[in-house]
Amino acid sequence: MVRKCDYMIRKQMSQKSKMAEYAQLEPHQFRKLCRDAKHTSHTSGACEKYAQANLIVLPKEYANDFVNLCLRNPVPCPLLCQTPVGDPFKVDDSRYLQKGFDLRTDFPSYNIYENGELRLTKTDVRDEWSSNHIGFLIGCSHSFEHELCENGLVPRHLTLGRGVPVYKTTKRLDPSGVFINCTYVVSMRPYKPEDVPKVRKITSSFKKTHGEPVDWGYDGAERLGIPDLKRPDFGGQPVIHDNEVPVFWGCGVTPQLVVMQQKDKIRGPVISHTTGAMLALDITSEDIKRIG
Amino acid sequence: MVRKCDYMIRKQMSQKSKMAEYAQLEPHQFRKLCRDAKHTSHTSGACEKYAQANLIVLPKEYANDFVNLCLRNPVPCPLLCQTPVGDPFKVDDSRYLQKGFDLRTDFPSYNIYENGELRLTKTDVRDEWSSNHIGFLIGCSHSFEHELCENGLVPRHLTLGRGVPVYKTTKRLDPSGVFINCTYVVSMRPYKPEDVPKVRKITSSFKKTHGEPVDWGYDGAERLGIPDLKRPDFGGQPVIHDNEVPVFWGCGVTPQLVVMQQKDKIRGPVISHTTGAMLALDITSEDIKRIG
Repeated sequence: MVRKCDYMIRKQMSQKSKMAEYAQLEPHQFRKLCRDAKHTSHTSGACEKYAQANLIVLPKEYANDFVNLCLRNPVPCPLLCQTPVGDPFKVDDSRYLQKGFDLRTDFPSYNIYENGELRLTKTDVRDEWSSNHIGFLIGCSHSFEHELCENGLVPRHLTLGRGVPVYKTTKRLDPSGVFINCTYVVSMRPYKPEDVPKVRKITSSFKKTHGEPVDWGYDGAERLGIPDLKRPDFGGQPVIHDNEVPVFWGCGVTPQLVVMQQKDKIRGPVISHTTGAMLALDITSEDIKRIG
Repeated sequence: MVRKCDYMIRKQMSQKSKMAEYAQLEPHQFRKLCRDAKHTSHTSGACEKYAQANLIVLPKEYANDFVNLCLRNPVPCPLLCQTPVGDPFKVDDSRYLQKGFDLRTDFPSYNIYENGELRLTKTDVRDEWSSNHIGFLIGCSHSFEHELCENGLVPRHLTLGRGVPVYKTTKRLDPSGVFINCTYVVSMRPYKPEDVPKVRKITSSFKKTHGEPVDWGYDGAERLGIPDLKRPDFGGQPVIHDNEVPVFWGCGVTPQLVVMQQKDKIRGPVISHTTGAMLALDITSEDIKRIG
């Protein structure tokens, strides 16, 4: 038991020191590390001045319904940009990504879904991304963590060197075409109740990366239908102190859950990032704030 | 009892024939009728080829939070345009309204709220609209009713010559600044279950006027927390046939409820349209469909 604890502490320390190193990298350098499978896990704290993105890659016949789903539900699904059909080297908004990227390799790792079920996790999806696929980049709350830190409101999971805790909820998205009966996924960061107004204010500027929280407090957890905060559905294990409350933000894992919720209505493979393991974008957190 | 029925039928017939006349008017002609207090009730079917708008007028200190609330919740609150501070004769997007309008008089009637409570209903708010107020126009589902009619899917309340039935729900908006604990208001039109996909498809194009339904079916009513469909909170009395289900759309009365839900957190008078009694816009329903 002592040895296991010791091992875990050493692992966390090593993850933290690695992340301190990654924090200073340029996005293209960090993407290269992921492309070469030298970094394959969560990206909280990487390229700390830059924004990050979630990924969902769908067969083109679902693209219109998905874009409309994002427009109707911009808090859990803030759509940044999309690729042309079958082309993982281009996006339709160069503010987010410039040249020299490959969306099939530049995330740390990927999930592959078939008929709404997770089939496989890989660090490279060059074999799966077909000429029929369109990739969508969705804003990520990692993008506002740097500004929270700058204001002395360091998210707990960064202190712990873990991924942010992520929960499924019962809060429903407004439907769009094939996408019905969809529910929000949220990320959670604990804060003292007296800090919540400041935390809301800071994150509200980040309209393209989920903006301000969707709810907060233990009553908020109940409203969101989260049965047990100690058991996140994805991400790292939470630590909430007695003088703190949980604060919940929309999360870019939502599109993955949405796909799973449609089951075999979505034919053909769907590709996504894995929870917490994002793409480093070429836009700074400061600049993404200016995009409404 | 016979006489009351007779009176109601005659009243409905007269409303229906009036609306048939109003259906053919140009928006500026219909606005003039409202300005002169010659039409003071609901506008379902008026200027049938043109879109309509809801109104909320707030003291300027709440404008940023309100705009952000709309951006975060575009289904119940599709923001079309806004006025400069204190100027009811201009809006910031001339696609919706051209010259020659006065937002203080051109709606059939207005509600005036103080500390979240309805104080007064008037046909003209020239005395209440101060130099500190900003007016916001919100898309209205009346705008897609013409296209439903063209496709043989005539909304029941038009057949009956009534306003559309409108309900409060327990579905929560994502909060923005001062606006927290807000819930959706929805309008309801009954359809046969087999027509729901077509109804969803037709209305999904109208992204600036609530788009496709937020939910449908008696299970949908339950999910939305509507306790009794026979008792709408606003609008006309519903008639749902045995072979039909209720279909619910986001409703532009939501901002009024949002203001009421904030109670005395919103200081100073707030002005709105009255439920179902909208502004006739200069943009056609066909053209508003093209605005995403």
